[in-house]
Amino acid sequence: MTDVVALAQALLRADSVTPARGTVFDLLEAALRPIGFAVDRFVSGSAPDGPVENMIALRPGAGPHLAFAGHVDVVPPGDGWTGSPWSGEIRGDLLYGRGAVDMKGAVAAFVAAAAQAQGPTLSLLITGDEEGPATYGTPALIDRMAARGIAPDVCLVGEPTSVRQLGDMIKIGRRGSVNIWISVPGRQGHVAYPHLADNPAGKLARALAALQTLGLDHGNDWFQPSNLEITDIHVGNPAHNVIPARAEARINIRFNDLQRGEALIERVAAVVREHAPAASVTGKVSGEAFLTPPGPWTAVVSGAVEARTGLIAELSTSGGTSDARFLSQLCPTVEFGLVNATMHQVDEAVAVADLATLTAIYAEVIARLAA
Amino acid sequence: MTDVVALAQALLRADSVTPARGTVFDLLEAALRPIGFAVDRFVSGSAPDGPVENMIALRPGAGPHLAFAGHVDVVPPGDGWTGSPWSGEIRGDLLYGRGAVDMKGAVAAFVAAAAQAQGPTLSLLITGDEEGPATYGTPALIDRMAARGIAPDVCLVGEPTSVRQLGDMIKIGRRGSVNIWISVPGRQGHVAYPHLADNPAGKLARALAALQTLGLDHGNDWFQPSNLEITDIHVGNPAHNVIPARAEARINIRFNDLQRGEALIERVAAVVREHAPAASVTGKVSGEAFLTPPGPWTAVVSGAVEARTGLIAELSTSGGTSDARFLSQLCPTVEFGLVNATMHQVDEAVAVADLATLTAIYAEVIARLAA
Repeated sequence: MTDVVALAQALLRADSVTPARGTVFDLLEAALRPIGFAVDRFVSGSAPDGPVENMIALRPGAGPHLAFAGHVDVVPPGDGWTGSPWSGEIRGDLLYGRGAVDMKGAVAAFVAAAAQAQGPTLSLLITGDEEGPATYGTPALIDRMAARGIAPDVCLVGEPTSVRQLGDMIKIGRRGSVNIWISVPGRQGHVAYPHLADNPAGKLARALAALQTLGLDHGNDWFQPSNLEITDIHVGNPAHNVIPARAEARINIRFNDLQRGEALIERVAAVVREHAPAASVTGKVSGEAFLTPPGPWTAVVSGAVEARTGLIAELSTSGGTSDARFLSQLCPTVEFGLVNATMHQVDEAVAVADLATLTAIYAEVIARLAA
Repeated sequence: MTDVVALAQALLRADSVTPARGTVFDLLEAALRPIGFAVDRFVSGSAPDGPVENMIALRPGAGPHLAFAGHVDVVPPGDGWTGSPWSGEIRGDLLYGRGAVDMKGAVAAFVAAAAQAQGPTLSLLITGDEEGPATYGTPALIDRMAARGIAPDVCLVGEPTSVRQLGDMIKIGRRGSVNIWISVPGRQGHVAYPHLADNPAGKLARALAALQTLGLDHGNDWFQPSNLEITDIHVGNPAHNVIPARAEARINIRFNDLQRGEALIERVAAVVREHAPAASVTGKVSGEAFLTPPGPWTAVVSGAVEARTGLIAELSTSGGTSDARFLSQLCPTVEFGLVNATMHQVDEAVAVADLATLTAIYAEVIARLAA
């Protein structure tokens, strides 16, 4: 039987600031092979966003194929920790270390659950680059799976979704995110002779004001309304008596599954060009929205959580983006993991008891899927 | 008889980059005393905007008191001159030197005119700081005149108002100017959680858009409509996923005599606060608008110009601010001087013939005022 605490400690003691390679994967492979997993490790990409190490571990079984997705890279620890961020030490009821909740603890719990539970085909899709640019992380895993003909039926992402106590929240979707850059050209001139100039700042302000009245949508049963925020405006003109030559802004839209990123860029461009016909508008979609509507798969996870914690988890689509945006393209995808209160913070820690409970929940998920 | 060209050359050969003191005033005093002027030179102010030298030269006469206002400081010459900017040399038909048209040439012309013409009380109000901060320039002259009980009936400012040829434009007013700084505070936060933040950039954009629809006025017979320009916008937020904590803008309003600077600041503040109640709005009035409506005094100057050039000068209120904004508080004030094409430029030059014609025009003004 795999000891979840010992495995979590071992993983935490491996410095694996993003992008992670080598040791932390060695440790995971060593835990997976004895319990029947075939391990496929591969390195993808080149500078600046690579190379990145990823792993597909697969154990054939009967019934549906459950893919557990996660990462073993962590954000830099920063200064101010009480002990070493790589100590993996237990003080009181807590196990400390960078990645304790995000998300080496959940990886260890799933391995421990797989060691207990038999039945369905199981895979672990583990990337070494979730906290970084992620260009060669989960997208490369998905490419590799396609090339090998690996097609999971359901996916469970082990990100720390619980808020106050383990089991209070399951994520069944995430909003999408798009950044859009607006640049309005003008003609510089003296403020006393505005007819000889063309002020881009006024046009930009009118465009930005209009964008705020867009009313993208009203949300739906599972998502709040899509939301646009102006994140920067820049003119950079130090002279009090000069009409500037250019005005720029950057906006971010977090959007629900009623929207698509590229369509939003087009819609913003159309509004901007009403006020500034010569403006350039460029966008970059960080991720599309996804939703796994409540159904059989979400019921399995909810049921497992309730069975092991007594809690009725909230099904939520809140928060930022996650790798579930990629995995949801393969199959129904749900996210469930540890309490996220200390993630990315100094003295990140997981309750030792939660590791055992999470292992039990994951094992319950596997068992229910087999049934 | 004062030789206008020789006096202009002498003044040009004195380096008098703003603030001007000493030699250039010595030269002017030496030209004025022999033709009956009592000269009062004084130094005002302290760092950073002072000290500044100014001069009041007064010659009592009969009839109305005409004050000629001007400056003997010049802007820095910069690089690239064909000869020395202090050479005062004549090449072809032109006299070269920094200040040739702005405005040592006009000062020399008025002295030469005063040497020819007798009659009304004449004064020269000469500052050494018109091109700099001007804090202790013309305002100090006005204070000194008040203290000495000197009250001109009409004022002629010798700034270079002519555009294509000497005599084509007289300025009878100037717009005012006010700079206004807007700072909108917000609450920083993650774009994925806008309900926990308060985005100041959106409020600022809405305020700036609203300010552009203000429609301050429609202008009047002598002024174009008052005009507002956004001269800078600054947020300074490099993070794509962060709602910024503050957004700032600067605007400039050039306004006609239907408006007052302080009232404009209040009006802008009211609009801004509709969209951003917590915004701070501060303003600085560079100068109020002034107008000397066409009447007896403008007719004297127009008539003198027509008599000596055959031109019907356009009566204009165009361009930036000038010291006439201060002098117009004392009495009807008009600006008339040389062709401004080369002012503040490399190889600034005045046509030698224009110096004689301007002398004749100024003498004609004096003569008509006496009549």
